[in-house]
Amino acid sequence: MKDQIFASQEEHRDWLAGQAGLPAGFRVGTAAFDFMPKEATEQASMTVTAIVCDEPSASFGAVFTRNAFPGAPVILGRQLLDEPTLGAIIVNNKISNVCAPNGLDNARRTCAAAAGALGLAPEQVLVSSTGIIGWDIPIDEIEAAIPVAKADLQDQTILPAAVGIMTTDLYPKVRRIELPGGGSIVGIAKGAGMVEPDLATMLVYILTDAAVEREALRALLAKAMGPTFNALSIDTDTSTSDTVVALASGRAPKPDPAAFADGFYEVCGQLAEDVVRNGEGVRHVIRCVVQGAPDEAVARGTAKAVVNSPLLKTAIAGNDANIGRLVMAVGKYIGSNAPGADLSRSRMHIGPTQVLADGVFAIDPDTDAQLHAYLKDAELYESAPDGQGSYVPPVAYPPHQRCVEIVVDLGCGGAGFTATGADLTHEYVTENADYRS
Amino acid sequence: MKDQIFASQEEHRDWLAGQAGLPAGFRVGTAAFDFMPKEATEQASMTVTAIVCDEPSASFGAVFTRNAFPGAPVILGRQLLDEPTLGAIIVNNKISNVCAPNGLDNARRTCAAAAGALGLAPEQVLVSSTGIIGWDIPIDEIEAAIPVAKADLQDQTILPAAVGIMTTDLYPKVRRIELPGGGSIVGIAKGAGMVEPDLATMLVYILTDAAVEREALRALLAKAMGPTFNALSIDTDTSTSDTVVALASGRAPKPDPAAFADGFYEVCGQLAEDVVRNGEGVRHVIRCVVQGAPDEAVARGTAKAVVNSPLLKTAIAGNDANIGRLVMAVGKYIGSNAPGADLSRSRMHIGPTQVLADGVFAIDPDTDAQLHAYLKDAELYESAPDGQGSYVPPVAYPPHQRCVEIVVDLGCGGAGFTATGADLTHEYVTENADYRS
Repeated sequence: MKDQIFASQEEHRDWLAGQAGLPAGFRVGTAAFDFMPKEATEQASMTVTAIVCDEPSASFGAVFTRNAFPGAPVILGRQLLDEPTLGAIIVNNKISNVCAPNGLDNARRTCAAAAGALGLAPEQVLVSSTGIIGWDIPIDEIEAAIPVAKADLQDQTILPAAVGIMTTDLYPKVRRIELPGGGSIVGIAKGAGMVEPDLATMLVYILTDAAVEREALRALLAKAMGPTFNALSIDTDTSTSDTVVALASGRAPKPDPAAFADGFYEVCGQLAEDVVRNGEGVRHVIRCVVQGAPDEAVARGTAKAVVNSPLLKTAIAGNDANIGRLVMAVGKYIGSNAPGADLSRSRMHIGPTQVLADGVFAIDPDTDAQLHAYLKDAELYESAPDGQGSYVPPVAYPPHQRCVEIVVDLGCGGAGFTATGADLTHEYVTENADYRS
Repeated sequence: MKDQIFASQEEHRDWLAGQAGLPAGFRVGTAAFDFMPKEATEQASMTVTAIVCDEPSASFGAVFTRNAFPGAPVILGRQLLDEPTLGAIIVNNKISNVCAPNGLDNARRTCAAAAGALGLAPEQVLVSSTGIIGWDIPIDEIEAAIPVAKADLQDQTILPAAVGIMTTDLYPKVRRIELPGGGSIVGIAKGAGMVEPDLATMLVYILTDAAVEREALRALLAKAMGPTFNALSIDTDTSTSDTVVALASGRAPKPDPAAFADGFYEVCGQLAEDVVRNGEGVRHVIRCVVQGAPDEAVARGTAKAVVNSPLLKTAIAGNDANIGRLVMAVGKYIGSNAPGADLSRSRMHIGPTQVLADGVFAIDPDTDAQLHAYLKDAELYESAPDGQGSYVPPVAYPPHQRCVEIVVDLGCGGAGFTATGADLTHEYVTENADYRS
């Protein structure tokens, strides 16, 4: 997968379309409209996306953000987990529905409108809202959009839903696997900033036609989060609206459990990496593999500390493999969290180049040039300002899927963890300092 | 202090000079030189700074970084705490001495050279090295510079030392208080990036002529770190070389303990805020006051989460008081660390403007404009790119000492904590992505 290269947005869209066939038993429709936010002075546009089961399904599960100010859809969604079946998912982009004066009422009105249009009970409808925090969702316009999305329903492709849920994402994210005995698992994700998921993540919807049972699906969903979505961080910020939903129609055969689990992990892992690659201002995806740790918590914390160090992130943005900052980031975490650890046998690599051996820098005059070339090769695009000093990504697709791989062997145990993160760029600052999102 | 305004670099230097009188019993000298780092292709310049006691003093203390890859000077410095007296401090800027093949030997050679020049034993000399991590210090040149610094010693002003220890700092930092019964406390600090101290901090040297005893000084030093240096974060990254040293000459009278403690806290607190204000790319200093927390750990964690949220930091850089990101940052910390907390009575203010009441946004059409004006007023300088899109601070002094004050009342307890941080700007990315530091 790492050498998948896309020469143009058209090539990327073609590849996405090839991933996007809907599993049996699902339909998707969207409705876009303009509206005037009461908090703003300019019109905005919003898309309402509907993902509908042909028959309400008992086999569904969802995990949500641990942020202590969850959005109203998250509060309702948690209650929904006790319901016997789920029939539809309604998503609006542009505005999340968090700490808003009428937030819960508006989320319930969305459920009721969708239930009415689709012949369901309101408690068979899961809603999600994503976008600006602090504004009210335009509930009248959303109610009016639901019948339009219903009229748009089709059973061929999930791509319109992957596009409809985007906010600051540069491109849609779709991943699929085919199951050996028939059926498939297809997932979509949105999320580009405010991404360091904690137990759950951005908005992710995973559909399968495999006949997998509710409890098995939920157990798998809970287990798959740790090494996939919970192992990534774009900017350490945990959203108030993160939601991952898995939904099975049961229209394909009962799958081999191990093959289904493998496929489920693969779709989650690939979508997680897609989310980072398409993160706000991301020009390098960074994968930190920690080995030789005394336990998994230390391995995980070290890997997260590396991909979250602002100084290492900015250095990588500049194609500078600043090995001092790598050592600093590892030492920062270990010093605070495992102060007794013996690092005298620690080793570090960036790509194929070893930079630390037995706790001492191991570099020669060629190291810098080797590392610079390695980072340059992993760059998604070159950074360039416009005439006003604004930095905007020049591509709306991923030209390749390479990562900067950093291996940290702590040399004091047998545990490991892999975290995925990103560099910190002028493009991130332009997007987040200069525009409201 | 907050309304202290400096119209020019000269005004700021004059004010610093007025702070910088040395307490009795100390002398300061520096020596600057150019050298060719063996890891680089261009010459660099370095300053060696000497702070010398007229008589070696038993009343000294130091706290050091908890980073698990400490620099060689930190390793030696910890051993020094058991020695009966301290006679001199030698600091080099430009290159730190961390995980270097001959690091400890080179630090010991520095001690020996200073001891020889100043008539001390090597174990009466504390060394510090700060700057690039991964390079070797030029030990031959440092040895040659020490007699030059000795010849430069004078007993009038600490300002040359405050300048000599700078790396990416835009300007020197000096703070002083006069003790009621005679004598003074004078401190200097360097540090602009890789600053989220953990138990200790950047390089800070605090001198007093008060006759305070060793154990009392060390106890005060340990206690004063929590609410001052350990309450600040520029970029969440903890340096490998952080050191705070306190040293008393005993040439002034024995101070009233409470007055001495107040003065010591004040010097530490003001230097800590100076370090943030002069942090890499800092255009807004952010002070987050958390109240109503269930315990101090939650108060501290919440305050740190607010000042460390990249999305809130970038919003403030853009003079956008993005209240959604503030709520997200608080909820992120509480959700992960105090998940049972009842936030239904939580309130938040940015400056004089209330933005959240009883857990619900409390904003009206004027809120945005009020907050924008407040943030604009707290800006240190306007951001503007040069023709190549590089962002470089246009001022090398702090035009004022105002902060962005954010008050978060969690409404579920009686504990509080105040943390100080900074925005995240194009200037930070330019400095850290485009240059090796």
